Amino acid sequence: MKLNCDLGESFGSWQMGLDAAVMPYIDMANIACGFHAGDADVMAKTLQLAKQHGVTVGAHPSYPDLQGFGRRSMALSASEIINTMRYQIAALDGMAQSADVSISYVKPHGALYNDMMASASVFDAVLDAVAGYYRPLKLMILATAEQQHYRDLANAKGVELLFEAFADRRYTDDGKLTPRAQPGAVLHEAEMLAQVSQLVTQGTVTTVSGKTLPLNADTLCVHGDNQAAIAQVEKIKALLA
Amino acid sequence: MKLNCDLGESFGSWQMGLDAAVMPYIDMANIACGFHAGDADVMAKTLQLAKQHGVTVGAHPSYPDLQGFGRRSMALSASEIINTMRYQIAALDGMAQSADVSISYVKPHGALYNDMMASASVFDAVLDAVAGYYRPLKLMILATAEQQHYRDLANAKGVELLFEAFADRRYTDDGKLTPRAQPGAVLHEAEMLAQVSQLVTQGTVTTVSGKTLPLNADTLCVHGDNQAAIAQVEKIKALLA
Amino acid sequence: MKLNCDLGESFGSWQMGLDAAVMPYIDMANIACGFHAGDADVMAKTLQLAKQHGVTVGAHPSYPDLQGFGRRSMALSASEIINTMRYQIAALDGMAQSADVSISYVKPHGALYNDMMASASVFDAVLDAVAGYYRPLKLMILATAEQQHYRDLANAKGVELLFEAFADRRYTDDGKLTPRAQPGAVLHEAEMLAQVSQLVTQGTVTTVSGKTLPLNADTLCVHGDNQAAIAQVEKIKALLA
Amino acid sequence: MKLNCDLGESFGSWQMGLDAAVMPYIDMANIACGFHAGDADVMAKTLQLAKQHGVTVGAHPSYPDLQGFGRRSMALSASEIINTMRYQIAALDGMAQSADVSISYVKPHGALYNDMMASASVFDAVLDAVAGYYRPLKLMILATAEQQHYRDLANAKGVELLFEAFADRRYTDDGKLTPRAQPGAVLHEAEMLAQVSQLVTQGTVTTVSGKTLPLNADTLCVHGDNQAAIAQVEKIKALLA
Repeated sequence: MKLNCDLGESFGSWQMGLDAAVMPYIDMANIACGFHAGDADVMAKTLQLAKQHGVTVGAHPSYPDLQGFGRRSMALSASEIINTMRYQIAALDGMAQSADVSISYVKPHGALYNDMMASASVFDAVLDAVAGYYRPLKLMILATAEQQHYRDLANAKGVELLFEAFADRRYTDDGKLTPRAQPGAVLHEAEMLAQVSQLVTQGTVTTVSGKTLPLNADTLCVHGDNQAAIAQVEKIKALLA
Repeated sequence: MKLNCDLGESFGSWQMGLDAAVMPYIDMANIACGFHAGDADVMAKTLQLAKQHGVTVGAHPSYPDLQGFGRRSMALSASEIINTMRYQIAALDGMAQSADVSISYVKPHGALYNDMMASASVFDAVLDAVAGYYRPLKLMILATAEQQHYRDLANAKGVELLFEAFADRRYTDDGKLTPRAQPGAVLHEAEMLAQVSQLVTQGTVTTVSGKTLPLNADTLCVHGDNQAAIAQVEKIKALLA
Repeated sequence: MKLNCDLGESFGSWQMGLDAAVMPYIDMANIACGFHAGDADVMAKTLQLAKQHGVTVGAHPSYPDLQGFGRRSMALSASEIINTMRYQIAALDGMAQSADVSISYVKPHGALYNDMMASASVFDAVLDAVAGYYRPLKLMILATAEQQHYRDLANAKGVELLFEAFADRRYTDDGKLTPRAQPGAVLHEAEMLAQVSQLVTQGTVTTVSGKTLPLNADTLCVHGDNQAAIAQVEKIKALLA
Repeated sequence: MKLNCDLGESFGSWQMGLDAAVMPYIDMANIACGFHAGDADVMAKTLQLAKQHGVTVGAHPSYPDLQGFGRRSMALSASEIINTMRYQIAALDGMAQSADVSISYVKPHGALYNDMMASASVFDAVLDAVAGYYRPLKLMILATAEQQHYRDLANAKGVELLFEAFADRRYTDDGKLTPRAQPGAVLHEAEMLAQVSQLVTQGTVTTVSGKTLPLNADTLCVHGDNQAAIAQVEKIKALLA
């Protein structure tokens, strides 16, 4: 079970996230590409950090919305999604190759990620963006109860999927994340570690209603925002060892 | 003598340049990368147009200044120049490869181009940006009387240069362009065609003071802004045929 | 019946609209505030043009989306809508007062306009933005069959409304605009002039199904994008004289 | 001796500065206007904070360079400086008035501030921006040995100046700040408090060469970036009490 983390989310003079602190614990770095966070300087620095720790790198493209940190849904057409994703992926990819790093996957960010999981047409555009990129990249999406459905769609376009689970979020019965606004949506540390353990050993999660739901995840999303988050990642890493 | 032209300078809903009209006459398309003009959708469209006409494609990176169209000098550090250029080159490069087009050179835009020709440290940063890109790209700069000097600097970093001359601009005695603000800086059509003819047949230009100056140019910069510009390109093309 | 027109939609080096050509025919200029179009230089120039022709000026704020020209819906919170609108209105207002021009109304642009007419919560936020501005401004919205409903909402917050009708768009039975994608949505010139005439003399429009619908409009939206549009404005102006 | 501080420099999801912690100690808040930092939401929040503490508010306009935090010089024309400053001042002004706060001065930010002190033409454009604003605002500039020169220029355009000194920076013999890159440019705490004390009681500073230089400052620039900076502001405030 690989750990992935959103990184490179500083911008200009603004710092965000403890990238250097979390990098030693993770396997996959989702690097912002300048549209919700990151800029060319931050990207160059983050690529060096990933390289130094031998962490696999993926592109983390977003809607074009710096002020909103890519968290506000935007009504882009399919071709706009395809082109903006390709632009961002390519920018990171060329900078990565120039730093002797090779990106291997794409994880859409924020509202684009949510829209992709909620809308068949957005998911289709995201698939096209990746499928038509000049070299094969995997696409990371949310592990839900409908994994086969998504796999079929991706296979039809020749895209390999990576499914990610969340350590610290309570799942609904259909394998989605309980919205953050609801009580109990975010797990306490003990619950989180139990969920990770169950996911790894049994391939299931216990949903909000108490059901046991199979969830095959390739990777677990963790956070490096602050010292408390880093401490959690350390514990998850120890649990997985 | 190849003809090069700045293209893909529309942005969002704003049109600029008659790209489709000028494309049949040119050999090299300098495509904007989103920082002074162009966006992912414009870039995708411009790449298709270049591909359709078999035109060689180069990246046209700029200072980050959409409002100023990259024409306002900005005090970027060397590493900022390197990273912003790599980001823009990479964005176009990956989109181009995804469209089965391969970019082969870089031509800095506007104020970055002028600063590169005026400042040794900016030229050095521009060279580093290109030299450290993960695959070899040529760098297009102004053909001046100091070509050997620039060639030496570029050779030291393993970068091949392309020298461009301007059809419609009067040259100073040291092989620079007479500033646009000065009378006679921009040539009338007959003068322009005479200058092109002299450049091609004798490898020289007649400077503002009447001197004959050797100028070895690989390519001639032409414009596609409007119908008058297109008509001039047609005449230059006919002259070169 | 006043004529209003969206103006000041150039940006940096990109021209849009024949502002100087249409200004003599219109009564109200909706000036872009830099978020979908316009910049401080364009705004200063457009304000001078409006002043010269004695045209009433309004602010034309938008979602923050230059590339999408404010035509892509964005999921802003109520407070984000309020603050971004106030910022844009204030920017134009202070520049206008510095040019001895006084803005008197606000017309939301593009997707923000459409969302305001489609969503009660967006309309409420837009009303709050205007109601809480430090001096009274009117709010321009679409004249539909529900004018009293909107008037009640606006009165409750002390905002005066201006209702606008469209000369060249076919109305649905509930007084909305037939979507542009549908055949017959945009009227030919003769139909347009007939619709204007009917609006002015009888206060009604004939809907797509042939019904006669009362529509009390304070102002008619016209366009100045190109010569054909200007010619139409001239004819509408002549009809109204 | 009033204390002024740059505030409202967060942007979107990025936090910068401990605004709430420093606000109780300062007299004047220089609020970012969205071009180097700040956005409409941050501005609204910062205005509330200033109002709550009865702090005088000024506009802190910048070159348009979010990534560079307004610290990179940009070659704007005089009219571009005037218009971009008016836009930013007006945006803050209208939002302030809508929050029952009245801005009273303008302090250019970063590279624009430095360029204004280094270039007569930039200073002239900055003066014009303020002089032509629709209501009187003061302009805050660096207190140097040439105060009378600047006062004469400002008087000629009817602008009142505010001179600011720096508590923690070593002065050169001509009353400028020793560049940060030089050793000893930034004072240790004891030196800083001594400099503040000397400024307040004797109206002089001791320059880098040991000379005593008269410096009439209306206000002292302090910082609220982190806890250490806040602690220094507390000590300066105590010293001035």
